[in-house]
This record gives sequence, structure tokens and C-alpha cells, in this order.
Amino acid sequence: MKIGYLGPLGSYSYEAACRHSISIGVKSELVALPDFTAIVTSVERGVVDTGIIPVENSTHGAVAAAMDSLLRLAYGCVCGEMVIDIEHCLLSDEKGAAEIKCVFTHEQALGQCYEFFRKHCSDIEFIMCSSTSQACEMAKKNGRGYGAIAGKTAAGVYNLAIVADGIQDNGYNQTRFLIIGSEKPAASGNDKTSIVFSFHDDCPGSLYGVLKVFADRNINLTRIESRPAKNTMGKYIFYIDFTGHIDDNKCIEAVTEIRCMVSWLKVLGSYPAAQVLTGKKI
Amino acid sequence: MKIGYLGPLGSYSYEAACRHSISIGVKSELVALPDFTAIVTSVERGVVDTGIIPVENSTHGAVAAAMDSLLRLAYGCVCGEMVIDIEHCLLSDEKGAAEIKCVFTHEQALGQCYEFFRKHCSDIEFIMCSSTSQACEMAKKNGRGYGAIAGKTAAGVYNLAIVADGIQDNGYNQTRFLIIGSEKPAASGNDKTSIVFSFHDDCPGSLYGVLKVFADRNINLTRIESRPAKNTMGKYIFYIDFTGHIDDNKCIEAVTEIRCMVSWLKVLGSYPAAQVLTGKKI
Repeated sequence: MKIGYLGPLGSYSYEAACRHSISIGVKSELVALPDFTAIVTSVERGVVDTGIIPVENSTHGAVAAAMDSLLRLAYGCVCGEMVIDIEHCLLSDEKGAAEIKCVFTHEQALGQCYEFFRKHCSDIEFIMCSSTSQACEMAKKNGRGYGAIAGKTAAGVYNLAIVADGIQDNGYNQTRFLIIGSEKPAASGNDKTSIVFSFHDDCPGSLYGVLKVFADRNINLTRIESRPAKNTMGKYIFYIDFTGHIDDNKCIEAVTEIRCMVSWLKVLGSYPAAQVLTGKKI
Repeated sequence: MKIGYLGPLGSYSYEAACRHSISIGVKSELVALPDFTAIVTSVERGVVDTGIIPVENSTHGAVAAAMDSLLRLAYGCVCGEMVIDIEHCLLSDEKGAAEIKCVFTHEQALGQCYEFFRKHCSDIEFIMCSSTSQACEMAKKNGRGYGAIAGKTAAGVYNLAIVADGIQDNGYNQTRFLIIGSEKPAASGNDKTSIVFSFHDDCPGSLYGVLKVFADRNINLTRIESRPAKNTMGKYIFYIDFTGHIDDNKCIEAVTEIRCMVSWLKVLGSYPAAQVLTGKKI
């Protein structure tokens, strides 16, 4: 079993891929891929069996590039989700935060630790990196006086000391990952379905009409996300996650009705809903 | 008149601030500020008269940190919007793209030029920066072999050559800015209103109920955006822009009705709608 994730080694996606591998109980090879498009296309071409992509964080919101990559799904589908706690650490070859002058970080990670740095080390310079792992690589390469924001797994992978842990502003910091693959899971009794669609034209009540279809059937929406249609300002495509499996009668009815109201609609997949532990303070 | 924008000099926010200054016809001092929170708080404290913040791009979507900063508005309000065309260029001290080995860029700018680099120079290394201006500073500092993605204004400010222009994937690349200030504009006859709210609890039909209020009054929504509530995965706050002014009777009725359905609601402001030129190919 090959599992594709957003590399390099030590990223939170790597942690998620490790956990997924353990949860399925099958010996897996974890394959580091350079971006979300590569993950989706590797699943489509059968280069990997499964891909793991982060789609939203409880503090920072949607991961835009990951959402966009889902549009490339043709044969593959979303076949699972997982939510993992994110605990950011300040890693360095230094022993104390006071000695660190410059921190390498991914933009999302910095956005989640803003208050920590404002309070404790407001004069630190930040350099943006494409992932938390790249940040660790750069901190290690530059040595004394440099640090990185990343997880504990990365500290081990890059041999950096944990100068401070749990530095995220919000104790409830979780990232939701979607698992994509080629096999559609059967209904489990506690499922979610993800769809994406857009409208022919903007007119009053378009989105309202779609939400009415769900409300009329007492189907709960767990997420609604708009993304730009990319052809002009003010045109959007919508991602909706709702409870239920696409093989349930009321979900089939709802999606069939919505197809008549939109210019295009794609069912990204139905999958068992992950258990989200709310109120868990890290 | 002091106008605060996301610095440093030469950013697209700087271009937007210049254009706003020209459009109001008042001699203005442009004040570079380090982040969106600083822009909002500077308006709140009267340090600047007006602030300009980018809230969405037609290719890359919402600017998350800018959306979040709007929650800090207490005395101030959204008092205008402007949409500007974004034309990204590859800037460098080199004359040709082939000589560039490493490009400094803001994550959003790179996300908008992905195809150009994939086709023309796939082996270039990217280093993320906090703004297009910082990218130019870094490219200038590092000299030969380095480049930056930024606008033409930045080429002049940082004395870099334009190696390639119009490198964005999508000809329709526009960014929408909100203008924040302390004076609420009167109705102009062609207005938009921005609100933000959240629900007590997730239950089927919550968002549907809110959209029904607008649909019943034939009020068009121009944008709906969800952001994480930041306390647990799966809880959101919603930003809605709709046509009409908050002093219009039907808008007053709608907002009054919605207040009874949500846990909190804030009217961010009513302002004249910007003219968006659709179909304009850069």
C-alpha cells in the first residue's frame, strides 16, 4: 500500500499519513510528493493507492490550494477523513527563544502562533517557507540563531531541540485531512458526502435554493466553502459537505434535484465521518 | 488625509492606496503598516484616516488574515471597496528567465503564476516571503541569479528589470480591496453591505434560514465566505456581502430578522459598490 502525502519528511501531512497507515493496519510505503496536484494525479494514475491532503485548519481556515486540487479528481474519490491535533513547537539548535533572531515558517503555521511571538519575542524576523519541514531544513542548515515552527515529529526528523512547545494561539488547533483513493466506501451509518458545484449566473436566491433542498430533507450541512471561479471577480464555486451517504435515498434525491439548479455538480465522495473530539485542550 | 496600507512600498496594496488617493482627489500621506491588524487598529485609534485591505483575489480566493482582521472593527466601518487588475511580472537583475535560479515570492502571487513557471522554468527554486515587496527586496539584495514575482510599480521602486510581464495563469486576475474608515457613507443608490455572524449551534437549516431572509426580499448576495470560529473543528463564522444599504427598509428588516436567528451579528458597513469590469483580458 503506497500513501502519498505533502512532503518533505516530518510535515504534519507526514504525521497524518503515519496515523492513517497505523489505522488501516496494512504495511505501507509513505511517498513524499511536492504539491497537492501531484498527490491527486498520483492517485488518479495509480502511482499511489491513497493520498492525504489537509483541507482545513480550525484556526486558519481552508487550505485553498488543497481545495482547488480536488477539482482534478476524475476516477478517484474522497474515501475518508481524519482530524488531527496540531501542536506547534519552536525548534532550533539554540536552547532558548531569546537567542533566536530569525524563524523559518510556513505561512499557516505562523498565522496560528501569532500571539506567542508577539508576547515573547516581538523582534524576531520571519522567513516564509513552503512547508514546516522546509522550515526545519532551513533552520538546521543556518544553525545558531535560527529557528523553525513545526511539530514534535519534525524535531526528531531534523535533530532540532524543542525550545518551546504548544505555542499555537488556540488550544483547539486541529487540521482536517481528506483521504483520496480509487475505491468508494460503502455506507457505514455515520457518513459524510462532499460535493462541489457552480451556478449558471448570479441571481438572487441561487444558493438559497440549494440549501433549501437540504433543509427540506433535514440533511445537515457540516461545511460550506466558496472558492473563486477564477474567470472573474464575484463568481464562485461552492464546496458543501453534508451528513449522509450518496447511496441513501434522501441524499440521491437531494443531489438529483440540485443538479437541475446548477451549471455543473461533482460528487467528490462519501466516507465515514471522523470523530472530532471537541473541547480537548492540548 | 493619511491612508494606511500593507507595506512595504511597492506592494499591490500600495498601488491600491495610490489609486484611492487619486480617486478622492485629496492630498494624502500613504502610511506603510506591517500587517492587517495594524491597519484596522490604526483606523480605530485615529492614527490614519483610512485603511486599505485586500480581501479576495479572483484566482486565489479569500485573504484569510485580512478577513479575520475585520472582526477587530469597533468604531470604524467598511466604507468603500475597489477592484484592481493584478498583473504579475518576473523581476530580476538578470535579463532572461533562463538565468534565474531562485525566485522570492508571496504565496498568493506564486499560486497565481503556477502554470507560467511549470511551462517555462520548472527547475526554479522558490522562497516564500511575506509580501511581493519583501520578495523584491530579497531579489535585489541577492542580485544575479535571483528574481521576484511582483507588479510593475515594484519594478520601478526596487530598480529591477521586468524579465516577463503578465505571467499570471489567468488573464482575469483581480483583487478586491475594502476601504475602512470612521465615517459611514450615505446610501448612493448602488450599494453593498457586509455583515458577519455565527450561530448558537450547528443544526440542520441554520444557514438556510438566513439565506431565506434575503431570498424572501429579493436581496442578492454577492459573496458568502466561511471562516473557522477558531474554538473547534467544524464551527464557523460567516461573512455575507449583499446588495443594498443598511438604511434601506428591506435591509433593516432582513438584518433585524437575522439577529434573532444567530448568536451574534455585526454590520461591518454599507458602501458604494465598485464597478467590476468583467471580461477584460489583461
